[in-house]
Amino acid sequence: MSERPPASAEHAPGACAAAADYEARVRASFATQGIMALLGATLQAVGPGHCEIRLPYRPQLSQQDGFFHAGVTSTIADSAGGYAGYTVMPADSRVLTVEYKMNLVAPARGELLVARGNVLKAGRTLVVTRVDVDVVAAGEAKLCATLLQTLICMQ
Amino acid sequence: MSERPPASAEHAPGACAAAADYEARVRASFATQGIMALLGATLQAVGPGHCEIRLPYRPQLSQQDGFFHAGVTSTIADSAGGYAGYTVMPADSRVLTVEYKMNLVAPARGELLVARGNVLKAGRTLVVTRVDVDVVAAGEAKLCATLLQTLICMQ
Amino acid sequence: MSERPPASAEHAPGACAAAADYEARVRASFATQGIMALLGATLQAVGPGHCEIRLPYRPQLSQQDGFFHAGVTSTIADSAGGYAGYTVMPADSRVLTVEYKMNLVAPARGELLVARGNVLKAGRTLVVTRVDVDVVAAGEAKLCATLLQTLICMQ
Amino acid sequence: MSERPPASAEHAPGACAAAADYEARVRASFATQGIMALLGATLQAVGPGHCEIRLPYRPQLSQQDGFFHAGVTSTIADSAGGYAGYTVMPADSRVLTVEYKMNLVAPARGELLVARGNVLKAGRTLVVTRVDVDVVAAGEAKLCATLLQTLICMQ
Repeated sequence: MSERPPASAEHAPGACAAAADYEARVRASFATQGIMALLGATLQAVGPGHCEIRLPYRPQLSQQDGFFHAGVTSTIADSAGGYAGYTVMPADSRVLTVEYKMNLVAPARGELLVARGNVLKAGRTLVVTRVDVDVVAAGEAKLCATLLQTLICMQ
Repeated sequence: MSERPPASAEHAPGACAAAADYEARVRASFATQGIMALLGATLQAVGPGHCEIRLPYRPQLSQQDGFFHAGVTSTIADSAGGYAGYTVMPADSRVLTVEYKMNLVAPARGELLVARGNVLKAGRTLVVTRVDVDVVAAGEAKLCATLLQTLICMQ
Repeated sequence: MSERPPASAEHAPGACAAAADYEARVRASFATQGIMALLGATLQAVGPGHCEIRLPYRPQLSQQDGFFHAGVTSTIADSAGGYAGYTVMPADSRVLTVEYKMNLVAPARGELLVARGNVLKAGRTLVVTRVDVDVVAAGEAKLCATLLQTLICMQ
Repeated sequence: MSERPPASAEHAPGACAAAADYEARVRASFATQGIMALLGATLQAVGPGHCEIRLPYRPQLSQQDGFFHAGVTSTIADSAGGYAGYTVMPADSRVLTVEYKMNLVAPARGELLVARGNVLKAGRTLVVTRVDVDVVAAGEAKLCATLLQTLICMQ
């Protein structure tokens, strides 16, 4: 009565077929996002179906309690998911965000945000990603936000 | 420059402190959900911060192409997430869904749906869950939907 | 400093250019959704960019407190939004739900659910809808759920 | 068979009972959000259950195509919804965002963003808002994003 049905494969980074030159394309695009420089965000790892962006804290990024503002969290999360998706899109395509939903599961209080985007499903037109954002406080990381995001590949 | 910051702990089933008698409470509540009987859904595994519900296909559950209707998928997913959350709520509480968001990542075409809900963050008032739904076709499971859900504990 | 910028036009039913024969297509498709008959839902008004579906209460549609189950609410809401969107898609196309997010703003306790879907933005590939669901109790309607939904037009 | 059931009242700005001194509280809190100054956003109208925030374009706010970055759009939208909700919360409370979902319905290309948040449902613990964001290009406003947001009142 309780035997397990087969489980679907895990959706791990690296499960996607990345397009040629994906890292160069992602890094070039990231450099043109004015908001990343304004916030002080940096692009860390880029892999097939994966992207990580980090952002150190400063008071200009805060909401009223001095934590990272939810919009700031979502800004680096949206780009982390978008570039994770872009790695699996053709070289001559553009990526746009269709929508996302973000749950804030803990206050984003700390010295660093780390957003990790991973492709959950890569379709030809639409790509779905999951993005987890950790806040690092006193050297300890804690999940503070999680997103489901839908991207569209424009050709 | 690229050394890894500490990563947050995985949010695995079992990471939650379950309330006493959680399984009996969940099974009793499930039995009162009229819609589960109407659809033909059954409650499978219940664990701390985890719940699994299954639903075999029949034509009365379909949308226009003969697949499981998205609303049917969300019905068992909402209950799987809700009961995953209920396992970590006090014995005299009630659980209500605040909201959820569902991405349909593949057509739900097959002979069985399996929804697995897991608690992502258990607060005192709000509980956030993630629910993955597999469709099993010819014995092979494939992710067809994923949800982020927010629950409220009413006392 | 506080003069008002121009406001965007309201997104009212009727704002969309509907495809030929849209009502016949919607009604024919609705008739093939097995779940609508199982629940007892009926298709009411269909207009350009608009669709309304109603569902009378019975105990088989309930969650554990005897209200309409959130999944039942979302089932008719998903179809109301989907068919609102289908009215503005070409005659030879198919409509699929990409994702939706639903907030449950009041308990769905009453004798009737009324879901009204309206197209918010009709793109060539993607259509975004908003669906409001009222519950009618003792003859009085009250908003119980609201959705944002993304559809894809398959050709 | 097709007579109309009663329709729920519209959720217009002003439908909420605002707390005393709500405008002073909102303006004081807004002034402490470091990110608003960094972006250049200004608080415009504040009313019972309503808040409007505007943001003029500059290249530092862009994504890779030169439009407003989705995260920037969501930053002012999150605050517009949050402060709309805060107007109906008690004077000694704090507001936090639980989650939101945003659909980007048109490219945010233009000289100004205008985010208007309105309370959809004001509960004691949770408040649900809807936020519409217009982009103004060559003096013409167009809806570019819409959000559903859940807030929590902390006391």
